Amino acid sequence: MQKPLILITNDDGYEAKGLRCLVEVAKEFGEVVVVAPDGPRSATAHAITMSVPLRLRPYHTDDDGTRYFRTNGTPCDCVKLGMKVVLKNRPVDLVLSGINHGSNSSISVMYSGTMGAAMEASVENVRAIGFSLLDYDPDADFSTAMVYVRRVVAQVLAHGLPPYAALNVNVPNVPLPQIKGIRITRQALGYWHEELEERTDPYGGTYYWLTGWLVNNDLGEDTCEWALAHNYVSIQPVQHDLTAHKLIPLLKFLEE
Amino acid sequence: MQKPLILITNDDGYEAKGLRCLVEVAKEFGEVVVVAPDGPRSATAHAITMSVPLRLRPYHTDDDGTRYFRTNGTPCDCVKLGMKVVLKNRPVDLVLSGINHGSNSSISVMYSGTMGAAMEASVENVRAIGFSLLDYDPDADFSTAMVYVRRVVAQVLAHGLPPYAALNVNVPNVPLPQIKGIRITRQALGYWHEELEERTDPYGGTYYWLTGWLVNNDLGEDTCEWALAHNYVSIQPVQHDLTAHKLIPLLKFLEE
Repeated sequence: MQKPLILITNDDGYEAKGLRCLVEVAKEFGEVVVVAPDGPRSATAHAITMSVPLRLRPYHTDDDGTRYFRTNGTPCDCVKLGMKVVLKNRPVDLVLSGINHGSNSSISVMYSGTMGAAMEASVENVRAIGFSLLDYDPDADFSTAMVYVRRVVAQVLAHGLPPYAALNVNVPNVPLPQIKGIRITRQALGYWHEELEERTDPYGGTYYWLTGWLVNNDLGEDTCEWALAHNYVSIQPVQHDLTAHKLIPLLKFLEE
Repeated sequence: MQKPLILITNDDGYEAKGLRCLVEVAKEFGEVVVVAPDGPRSATAHAITMSVPLRLRPYHTDDDGTRYFRTNGTPCDCVKLGMKVVLKNRPVDLVLSGINHGSNSSISVMYSGTMGAAMEASVENVRAIGFSLLDYDPDADFSTAMVYVRRVVAQVLAHGLPPYAALNVNVPNVPLPQIKGIRITRQALGYWHEELEERTDPYGGTYYWLTGWLVNNDLGEDTCEWALAHNYVSIQPVQHDLTAHKLIPLLKFLEE
């Protein structure tokens, strides 16, 4: 039986520790190809590159033949370049994204480049999983996360996923024995409370940095936030149908 | 009674004709402030800027006092900068985005910077509408679209919107008499069939341009694609909860 073909990307860039950890686990399951951004692309969501030409360069090959490419594009572009240029439309069995340095819970899933890549694959009905660890440290300890990457990838390869689904997996930043299990969750309906920190450059010009923190008023015990706060791994199924279906009957008054 | 406060942005940049047309109509309804990207930002989705400082510069004031700002950020950044820096957290009654040069139907809503901006406002529970005309021409004729901008804005200001909703309004590129009316629609479940066109630069390097076309296999008569193909204006309510709620019970096997 042929080994599964696994395409891997991320949004923290090709040098990120989380990417290396994800590749290490994925190799246990199949043939791995990596296409990653050439630098950090956090919060690039589903952005795709249209204003500048895309570059794609091989930057490494492992002793076992695993190939690595980097690009000036976004995580979404990585999935497109990987499937169409690097793999020349060979059927991909699984797209993995991450392991992200930092949480992609609640509304962060909308801004996340990690999840943008996973959802891009799901649009083409390729099974996809984004993994995130609740630690922004570039040298974060991914050992707990790797155990759950292994478990979730094994299950998804064995049982598949519903059509057009992608998974948003977030792992608490605690030692393995403290993890209580896995919860299938819905997105807690929070938002980022933001401030734009004003600074002055050496030439007298004003500029801003976006800063903020997540505010979660959604206390549901079926949410990602609840699960993570209680040391469960959160698995949120995501979809790319953005329609607010329940609102359709409420808006009929706009028809003429 | 105080006039409504309307914040306007787009993803085609501050010089786009569609932006000028949107401002012209919005001024009939209230106080308008414009914060637009300093160049094209098509397909930037919900991307926000974290790797470079954000700049914000006034570039014009109309005789009636309407202020215009441009930024190096994304459409999402424009909404944040507009609400927090320019308007200093004054309550905004309506965020308008567009009028986009080109369709944002079907899966395009996921990649769209126009809709990224509208959804950003909806996260903060500010009423928001993205408008798009099915014509990519920089000098497109927005006269039909402007009639429907006027109609939809009037209705939304009069009747409000359900909490956390944003509207994705697409207008067929036909003369006004050919428009058959408005349909409240769901997102047609299509995808972009893409190719990465390979080229060689003058120095021998390879680069790629993303090209493609929308493939729609969703023949439902309640979809945006059906409405637009039959000369209806399509209004799709969108939400920022990306959870695939129907899949939650199907994935319980992943819990432990």
